[in-house]
Amino acid sequence: AIRKALDELQPYDLAQVYLALPADRRCRLLHHLQKEEIAALLEELDLHHQAELIDKLGTHHAAEILRRMSPDDLADLLRRLSAENAAAILATMDAAYAVRVRQLMGYARETAGAIMTDRFVWIKPDMTVREAFDKLRQYADVAEILNYLYVVDPDKRLVGVVSIRDLLQAGEETPIADIMVERVISVPVDMDQEEVARVIERYDFVAVPVVDREGRLLGVVTVDDVLDVIFQEAGEDFSKFSAASKEAIDLRTSPLQGARRRLPWLLLLLVIGLFTGSIVSRFEDTLQRVVALAFFMPMIAGMTGNTGTQSLAIVIRTMAEEGLRARIILRLVTREAGSGVIIGFVCGTAVAIAAGLWQHNLALGVVVGLTLFLTLIVGTLAGTLIPIALCFLRVDPAVASGPLITTLNDVFSLLIYFTIAHFFLSWLLA
Amino acid sequence: AIRKALDELQPYDLAQVYLALPADRRCRLLHHLQKEEIAALLEELDLHHQAELIDKLGTHHAAEILRRMSPDDLADLLRRLSAENAAAILATMDAAYAVRVRQLMGYARETAGAIMTDRFVWIKPDMTVREAFDKLRQYADVAEILNYLYVVDPDKRLVGVVSIRDLLQAGEETPIADIMVERVISVPVDMDQEEVARVIERYDFVAVPVVDREGRLLGVVTVDDVLDVIFQEAGEDFSKFSAASKEAIDLRTSPLQGARRRLPWLLLLLVIGLFTGSIVSRFEDTLQRVVALAFFMPMIAGMTGNTGTQSLAIVIRTMAEEGLRARIILRLVTREAGSGVIIGFVCGTAVAIAAGLWQHNLALGVVVGLTLFLTLIVGTLAGTLIPIALCFLRVDPAVASGPLITTLNDVFSLLIYFTIAHFFLSWLLA
Ligand SMILES: [Mg+2]
Ligand SMILES: [Mg+2]
Ligand SMILES: [Mg+2]
Ligand SMILES: [Mg+2]
Ligand SMILES: [Mg+2]
Ligand SMILES: [Mg+2]
Ligand SMILES: [Mg+2]
Ligand SMILES: [Mg+2]
Ligand SMILES: [Mg+2]
Ligand SMILES: [Mg+2]
Ligand SMILES: [Mg+2]
Ligand SMILES: [Mg+2]
Ligand SMILES: [Mg+2]
Repeated sequence: AIRKALDELQPYDLAQVYLALPADRRCRLLHHLQKEEIAALLEELDLHHQAELIDKLGTHHAAEILRRMSPDDLADLLRRLSAENAAAILATMDAAYAVRVRQLMGYARETAGAIMTDRFVWIKPDMTVREAFDKLRQYADVAEILNYLYVVDPDKRLVGVVSIRDLLQAGEETPIADIMVERVISVPVDMDQEEVARVIERYDFVAVPVVDREGRLLGVVTVDDVLDVIFQEAGEDFSKFSAASKEAIDLRTSPLQGARRRLPWLLLLLVIGLFTGSIVSRFEDTLQRVVALAFFMPMIAGMTGNTGTQSLAIVIRTMAEEGLRARIILRLVTREAGSGVIIGFVCGTAVAIAAGLWQHNLALGVVVGLTLFLTLIVGTLAGTLIPIALCFLRVDPAVASGPLITTLNDVFSLLIYFTIAHFFLSWLLA
Repeated sequence: AIRKALDELQPYDLAQVYLALPADRRCRLLHHLQKEEIAALLEELDLHHQAELIDKLGTHHAAEILRRMSPDDLADLLRRLSAENAAAILATMDAAYAVRVRQLMGYARETAGAIMTDRFVWIKPDMTVREAFDKLRQYADVAEILNYLYVVDPDKRLVGVVSIRDLLQAGEETPIADIMVERVISVPVDMDQEEVARVIERYDFVAVPVVDREGRLLGVVTVDDVLDVIFQEAGEDFSKFSAASKEAIDLRTSPLQGARRRLPWLLLLLVIGLFTGSIVSRFEDTLQRVVALAFFMPMIAGMTGNTGTQSLAIVIRTMAEEGLRARIILRLVTREAGSGVIIGFVCGTAVAIAAGLWQHNLALGVVVGLTLFLTLIVGTLAGTLIPIALCFLRVDPAVASGPLITTLNDVFSLLIYFTIAHFFLSWLLA
């Protein structure tokens, strides 16, 4: 009955069933599964549960099952285990296979090499369509993707590609060289995974071949792994941008862990906040004489932070989509500066009138309005230039989080505010 | 020579070439292209350039070409044209085809129906593998995806699926019913496009079938369109979260347009900022007596906003990934509340010591520390509960932007700050 329920279950659903079971009943479930099914289950689990499951299986039995995982997913898993554990597992495997996995493990994190699979179908240009079909049939079980057959020359250089669509429409005896597309879109093995995702998105591919500098075919990145990359990177950008934490905080994170992951950022921002206070304290005298200046501090600091956050988000998005070219940066900076001036003018005028009327003090209105005009321009520029500078320093611009820009803009804006107020003090008191 | 250069060009690259040409030379390029190529080019362009190109072609010639677009992309295009223009174009098309396109145009925006294609291969359970291959061959040119053949009963109900992998491995005379998978993963036609993307990501599919309430097969969502959806939605969430603007601000946006799109949010935040000021003004007396209280306003308001932004990002992400179930909400709220208490305790204690030492005033240290302890808890809860409440009101939680939470938390935190200070006033002055 269990076997029947398990039949035709997708790996994702199998993993949901497995995770829903109490720990002791998971073992029993495993007995009902075939090796391939356990391998597929493993691919769906996170590191913690993978380690637990491998433990349950015992090293020897584990090797039997790990061998059935996709080599890319296996390399991923082993990369995240301790070096000894990974070596112990590789030692129990077929030597040739271990070499392949080690090779995949060797590519830099978050590159095409790190997410590619070496289970694809390649053919030679002098094969016929029938021979290609035979090869396809032979590897149907193993290959991760059957949509494309990659054509390589004797040096393993990628010289063409044939889609299964082309094969189906061609005569049986047609040579592959006649129907292959020679202008193959491929990616270098060290290309960043996000760029690989962009390539697949642009061309509407379900897979893209990965080549080394000499144009030799090393592997294939498939669209399912690209989807994982995009979801993961989008989540990361979002977390970085909001300074939520570098490590993911999910449902399983405890309150203490959550606090610990968030505190480093907050303590940095706390120090900047106290520094801002020390700037305000230098103007104690001015503030003592015109206490009403304090009423506008939250609005000025807040608005400067908000425009900065807006610009930051716009710049991060644009750079992610368009890349870091001089022409693009120039356009971005001039556009944002222009927007900053307009926003500053509108908000500054509005607030000058509101503040002047509220406090029955024309001078205060002018000071607050002029300040906001200037700080909104500064805030916009900070939100624009800081991520661009980080990009040039090869730091991910998303670490210039909204909270960081907001807190830095507190410093700038209050410094400008009190300097202007200090300058206009006699008028303010008149 | 031009024809040679255009040969084997991918639609994306063709679009890049087209866009790089000055307007008058684009016409000449079109003369070198086949109808299928122009259709593919159209699919790659944005609405503005699509309209321009259709204009260049003239209505009659345009219909010839639009007919060659994928029906889902054509429906997309027509949906965004004016009703008259769309009707005029549909009128020139084959009636049966126009009905199909109209049907696709009828599905609600951002649902499975709106992004599905009706160009897929379906077969009957009593066909043999050889017959299925024949059908596949026959439709290879038209179908958008060949990886799966969907099996339907006489009522068009989806009863199974066969992958091309299964077909390749089965004997020619095997009946489809013997090899088809009956537990088909499908999505309802009104499912939100983001959920469809999640389904495809989970199951590592390259396409998922779309069914109506009776289980009849209506179409197929392919992974390439899902990739577009994810990139687009991730960008939107990011923009909403940073209050950058609902409409996209990209490289072509002018400074004035950019300012206009950002101002509505900023003016709202400006009003809240002035309201915060009016709260501070109610404590003018307290502030006048202890001006040093103003030194800590930026830090307290800033930190409360920052923890709120962190919680907000965590909650939006978790809800996007896990959905809105009572169990998940309960866990999130208790975890965030717990984190808030810990963060409040750590930061509050640190700041109490720093403030006390800096201002040589124990009472001030206690007031600032106690305030921060309370406001960080409040900030965390605001960042957690507001997006959850929005979700229940069926508003996208991402509109509870970081800037909004930051500005609201200014109000809460300063109110708490001055209330506590007012309460401790005699001690502060001692
Ligand atoms: Mg996989
Ligand atoms: Mg992988
Ligand atoms: Mg990256
Ligand atoms: Mg695409
Ligand atoms: Mg497309
Ligand atoms: Mg893979
Ligand atoms: Mg990234
Ligand atoms: Mg579409
Ligand atoms: Mg949506
Ligand atoms: Mg997946
Ligand atoms: Mg997977
Ligand atoms: Mg499509
Ligand atoms: Mg969304």
